[in-house]
Amino acid sequence: MAPRFVKAIVMPSPGKLEVREFPYPSINENSAIIKVELSGICGTDKHMYKGEVIHPREAPTRFPIIPGHEVVGEIVEIGERASKIMEINAEPLKPGDRVVLVCDIRCENCYSCRNIYGFPVCEKNVGVSYGHGISCKDPPHLFGGWAEYVYVIPEARLAKVPNGVPVEAAVLTELLAVPYSAFGRVMNLWVYGNGYGPGDNVVVQGVGPLGLLNIIMARLTGAGDIIALDYVDYRLKMAEEFGADYTINMAEIKSSEERIKEVKYLTGGRGAELVIECTGVPDAVPEGLKMVSQFGTYLIEGLYIDMGDVEINPQRLIMSKNATVIAVNGQTYQSYGKCLKLMKKYNDKVRFDKVVTHKFKLEQAQEALRTALSKNSMKVAFKPW
Amino acid sequence: MAPRFVKAIVMPSPGKLEVREFPYPSINENSAIIKVELSGICGTDKHMYKGEVIHPREAPTRFPIIPGHEVVGEIVEIGERASKIMEINAEPLKPGDRVVLVCDIRCENCYSCRNIYGFPVCEKNVGVSYGHGISCKDPPHLFGGWAEYVYVIPEARLAKVPNGVPVEAAVLTELLAVPYSAFGRVMNLWVYGNGYGPGDNVVVQGVGPLGLLNIIMARLTGAGDIIALDYVDYRLKMAEEFGADYTINMAEIKSSEERIKEVKYLTGGRGAELVIECTGVPDAVPEGLKMVSQFGTYLIEGLYIDMGDVEINPQRLIMSKNATVIAVNGQTYQSYGKCLKLMKKYNDKVRFDKVVTHKFKLEQAQEALRTALSKNSMKVAFKPW
Amino acid sequence: MAPRFVKAIVMPSPGKLEVREFPYPSINENSAIIKVELSGICGTDKHMYKGEVIHPREAPTRFPIIPGHEVVGEIVEIGERASKIMEINAEPLKPGDRVVLVCDIRCENCYSCRNIYGFPVCEKNVGVSYGHGISCKDPPHLFGGWAEYVYVIPEARLAKVPNGVPVEAAVLTELLAVPYSAFGRVMNLWVYGNGYGPGDNVVVQGVGPLGLLNIIMARLTGAGDIIALDYVDYRLKMAEEFGADYTINMAEIKSSEERIKEVKYLTGGRGAELVIECTGVPDAVPEGLKMVSQFGTYLIEGLYIDMGDVEINPQRLIMSKNATVIAVNGQTYQSYGKCLKLMKKYNDKVRFDKVVTHKFKLEQAQEALRTALSKNSMKVAFKPW
Amino acid sequence: MAPRFVKAIVMPSPGKLEVREFPYPSINENSAIIKVELSGICGTDKHMYKGEVIHPREAPTRFPIIPGHEVVGEIVEIGERASKIMEINAEPLKPGDRVVLVCDIRCENCYSCRNIYGFPVCEKNVGVSYGHGISCKDPPHLFGGWAEYVYVIPEARLAKVPNGVPVEAAVLTELLAVPYSAFGRVMNLWVYGNGYGPGDNVVVQGVGPLGLLNIIMARLTGAGDIIALDYVDYRLKMAEEFGADYTINMAEIKSSEERIKEVKYLTGGRGAELVIECTGVPDAVPEGLKMVSQFGTYLIEGLYIDMGDVEINPQRLIMSKNATVIAVNGQTYQSYGKCLKLMKKYNDKVRFDKVVTHKFKLEQAQEALRTALSKNSMKVAFKPW
Repeated sequence: MAPRFVKAIVMPSPGKLEVREFPYPSINENSAIIKVELSGICGTDKHMYKGEVIHPREAPTRFPIIPGHEVVGEIVEIGERASKIMEINAEPLKPGDRVVLVCDIRCENCYSCRNIYGFPVCEKNVGVSYGHGISCKDPPHLFGGWAEYVYVIPEARLAKVPNGVPVEAAVLTELLAVPYSAFGRVMNLWVYGNGYGPGDNVVVQGVGPLGLLNIIMARLTGAGDIIALDYVDYRLKMAEEFGADYTINMAEIKSSEERIKEVKYLTGGRGAELVIECTGVPDAVPEGLKMVSQFGTYLIEGLYIDMGDVEINPQRLIMSKNATVIAVNGQTYQSYGKCLKLMKKYNDKVRFDKVVTHKFKLEQAQEALRTALSKNSMKVAFKPW
Repeated sequence: MAPRFVKAIVMPSPGKLEVREFPYPSINENSAIIKVELSGICGTDKHMYKGEVIHPREAPTRFPIIPGHEVVGEIVEIGERASKIMEINAEPLKPGDRVVLVCDIRCENCYSCRNIYGFPVCEKNVGVSYGHGISCKDPPHLFGGWAEYVYVIPEARLAKVPNGVPVEAAVLTELLAVPYSAFGRVMNLWVYGNGYGPGDNVVVQGVGPLGLLNIIMARLTGAGDIIALDYVDYRLKMAEEFGADYTINMAEIKSSEERIKEVKYLTGGRGAELVIECTGVPDAVPEGLKMVSQFGTYLIEGLYIDMGDVEINPQRLIMSKNATVIAVNGQTYQSYGKCLKLMKKYNDKVRFDKVVTHKFKLEQAQEALRTALSKNSMKVAFKPW
Repeated sequence: MAPRFVKAIVMPSPGKLEVREFPYPSINENSAIIKVELSGICGTDKHMYKGEVIHPREAPTRFPIIPGHEVVGEIVEIGERASKIMEINAEPLKPGDRVVLVCDIRCENCYSCRNIYGFPVCEKNVGVSYGHGISCKDPPHLFGGWAEYVYVIPEARLAKVPNGVPVEAAVLTELLAVPYSAFGRVMNLWVYGNGYGPGDNVVVQGVGPLGLLNIIMARLTGAGDIIALDYVDYRLKMAEEFGADYTINMAEIKSSEERIKEVKYLTGGRGAELVIECTGVPDAVPEGLKMVSQFGTYLIEGLYIDMGDVEINPQRLIMSKNATVIAVNGQTYQSYGKCLKLMKKYNDKVRFDKVVTHKFKLEQAQEALRTALSKNSMKVAFKPW
Repeated sequence: MAPRFVKAIVMPSPGKLEVREFPYPSINENSAIIKVELSGICGTDKHMYKGEVIHPREAPTRFPIIPGHEVVGEIVEIGERASKIMEINAEPLKPGDRVVLVCDIRCENCYSCRNIYGFPVCEKNVGVSYGHGISCKDPPHLFGGWAEYVYVIPEARLAKVPNGVPVEAAVLTELLAVPYSAFGRVMNLWVYGNGYGPGDNVVVQGVGPLGLLNIIMARLTGAGDIIALDYVDYRLKMAEEFGADYTINMAEIKSSEERIKEVKYLTGGRGAELVIECTGVPDAVPEGLKMVSQFGTYLIEGLYIDMGDVEINPQRLIMSKNATVIAVNGQTYQSYGKCLKLMKKYNDKVRFDKVVTHKFKLEQAQEALRTALSKNSMKVAFKPW
């Protein structure tokens, strides 16, 4: 039986978090309600909390917000038509099904949606995404994952979680889909001395959850040596557990030149075929470019927020090595299904579920965020029930 | 100290095998001698034994032959200049180094060598490859791996085996390099609903050593479900051990239509995104094409020998599903190094070395070939010492 | 002012054509009406007339049919919402705009529409396309281009014709979009001795309108030598006018082996990097494959109809040359806009409009079809007004 | 009959040019001598003259130098073995043949030559290329094109000029091969809303000879609108003659923001799918990135010389639009042959030969360089005879 009220964490403005109650909404034939099992804290959430978030194309954050765009839960109600088309691959849906929310909304009717395959670059719904792009001030309010329930609007999509995928793995789907989509663009270059393929070496700059999932994706696609860089021991240890062969602690090797030298040393003097930026920090770009091999690829994945300019020498850092730079901002919705399939097939070996290191109740919002910001954590998630 | 004579298995004509002795050769500044540790029996060797081998562009087999083009061994002598350039990646070489022979010879001076990256499509050296393309009747004779020593001519290349790669894995390098090169061409299509990427389903037709290595390569690149087909229980069991999720025993499911139905059933009605022919049998082609999904890829790897024509319906089997068919005949020499790197990184998980199920002395040539032909074996290899 | 009745050619069953009148329909906010300026006769129409058409996935032709899926015309009425989203690139539409009809219907909600970029492989609307997949027996009847007006259903799309594109060029958009989509898949392989790029040689088998547009697309992408094959002088002459360097008259060179020899001779003994099937005839496949160079590409575009099996030798024709075979069935709807742009930019040089050689009134249906079937014509079109 | 002495322009140090005489050399079986017909002045030559040249990987310029790496001429003598393998595509060569010099030397024996297809990234011969990387102080001296004769060392390659290609076109081969190689890497991305394909819009920053050849390559591959930017009227007028649809005079529109706005306006508000840097100036990079569309490509071709750092905002300029940046430094030697084929096929339409606007005698070295530096010229070349 449906409850009368729904508890949710609300961020009324940057730096503030409070638990509020909203009326339990009712659905129509095109919408659905999910009972949240887990909802992650993402880097974007931290930026928003710090007042830094900008949305694509300058859209403002629409406070008050119920944060949380990484969401796995159980369908409790779903409209007749939604049950037929809401699943990304058109699988039928029914109450009781475990699903992941596709957080970005595409209208499918603008130039970008019509021309760009699967990526959330909708011109109409600029910045409209669950957890930071839809305000909770208007009914039915429940547009974020840090809550007991989420309301799924008709334009949103869900990805059905296959049997055997732990809920702690499923909550990573949205984030894993970023490297999935990115590697798709990079391995398209795996031809003839160009780009990245199995056996090639990979550097990952920054081992937060995104960096860790890139390490996993590199391992899943047969990477050669994987070198991870971070400031934090906790994270570098997890990098090793999940497949990094070498780690460079930036708190110890403080000179950028030394770190570049180390990467060159570890890669036979040539640099890595693929270097992945997962830091969100502009300074990582010139350092990373210097770690790329001749004809190698630099992949930008972490720079979601405008953190300012950086000086680069385009001749020495890019031109002189015939490099390719690819930026992947978000993920295709098609990759959600592929990532869930990867979790199903490989969770016994890769243990995606162990990427979630901390779970909190909604009432522990402050502590959860502190933990997520502390760096002695990997993925932190809310578990409302 | 160098021996005076070298023992080798000679195939004077199809169906015959005998052990002969040849004088131990001397090198010049551009050549080298390898002491063979292991040399595999390949499908091509079996075809040659049965008198079926044809070479690319109709070159005749140059009997008498010392068979064996899958070779791992130790450098015992190497010329000054060869020590600097004979390694595929220009690593320096010296006596005592373990190396894999790159069996095909490229002249680098013909139109094909100049234009086609790394593949053995040399116009001058048509069919000139160790183990079946260079006769042993002329000195220095030792142009095949089923021998105590192999003579490495200046135009040939060697791949250095990294520490930690078991010799039983290294002997698979040449064969693993085929799916490596093939997946490079296929994953180039991993874009936007086309071709194959991580999480996609794969069918492997035929689980001889080549099929098994394709299963391994699919697993190393993050395949979704892998379905293996063969007539032989022994092989299907190995397929499962190495990562196949489902096996179809063709001795039990004798109807092609039934097998196609089964693959469709296992792939949600859609067929597999990638179907790989590793049978050498033309009839596999139409059956395999029927197992391919919309916009999927059919990869031909096993049809080295002309085994005749087959009827296909190009409209229904290819056109109606927007399919891509890619044939990969051989491997780039660049892929040797990548495959050895993969073995180094993943042998603890994948156990490449267990693909070699039987080893024989040179004197056991007949028994070795019988075993290789029996199907209750996977890779069979000669161990001369 | 809207007329009361609309004239249209109806094919009640194969081989029959008659002019009927239908009531002029009314639109709603999601639909539109086009006044037809030109509507082409396509190979599919000829097959349907001969009773041969099969639709993708075996869907039956839904007689009675108003044929015609190549349609250019003027919007006379358009609903409020349709005016905002019906154009493929979300350009606003209004009465008086010249548009091309996107003939195939995608639901955007099935697995195929969600995963396959732009191609008409919808699982729900199998075979639902204007001119052969929607019967005219139910209101509003006007689902084909050989008519005074066409009714555009909400799920259909229109492509706005830029100023300066002659109506005789615009009517080719749907057909030109096939090679456009095909070359997109082929030039993705233009890397490193593989596939086709500027300066490479192209063979086009069959110079009907589809073949001619492939010659144009090859020329527009910088092809080297273009060799065209056909039985008909009229067509080979047009091939030359539109950019073929060499023509082979199959009525004169009757032996397949001779034709292959000729192509080899014209390509320096190597065969063409790209051979394109535009014949609809299975026998073209083995002949065309024999014309492909090492690492070249065979592109199947013309085999829309199941015309039976053909014998091929997969080892000699595909494997021994490391060939790629790509089938392109239809076109992405995104390519409509690109093709119209190409017509705008290049019509002064390429004269797309001259591909239309004959125009007929609706009352001349029999004569029009006879002309189209005669081979002494290129694109034949109806001009209802 | 061979002369006793050969006249050549020598650059003993930056800023100096003088005509000297060298003894006419003799060949061996692996070398050749070319009688120079035309030799171009390239941007690199201008940089070297100004003392700015750095070579790849910091190799110093090896003064004294005979400049000139763009060379077309006639073979006057060629060794027996050279006549068989010196042509890039292994065409036989003989005295009297017109050839283009492949100016960069690959050893084919280092890691880079073995792994990187065709590009001049040899590790052994760093900076060893005709016209700036081999000093003329040692015999046989003639290692640059601004001379009556050039000596071709065994490791160098020649490209045979097909009949019908004017010598003024052939002299552009080396330079045209840069955009040819670049477009090969870019069109590999022509898939599904990514990268560049026919009908897409192109911006070219800087219309020196390299920029002009990029305009030509864009037109040859079916570009949509082409927008050219430069400071000089003379060059913008040539841009228009060779296919630019719009030009932006940077001397008139001095504000970078205004220029970006103009490009956005001309491209329907979206920016161009492909923006090409042909300026050699770091400031062009952020401006050009701002002109790139969502999922578009920025191609760096002109930054051969380290001209310092530039500030960019990697989030706004690259990440927020999912852009790809590709740097192409030099060209594959395989592209020489393709470019000569393009000249043969298209010179009647494109008039490559008209890109050469000025020719000078060797004695006019100072005037020639002044003309090349003046900007009221396009390609300037020496015509020694």
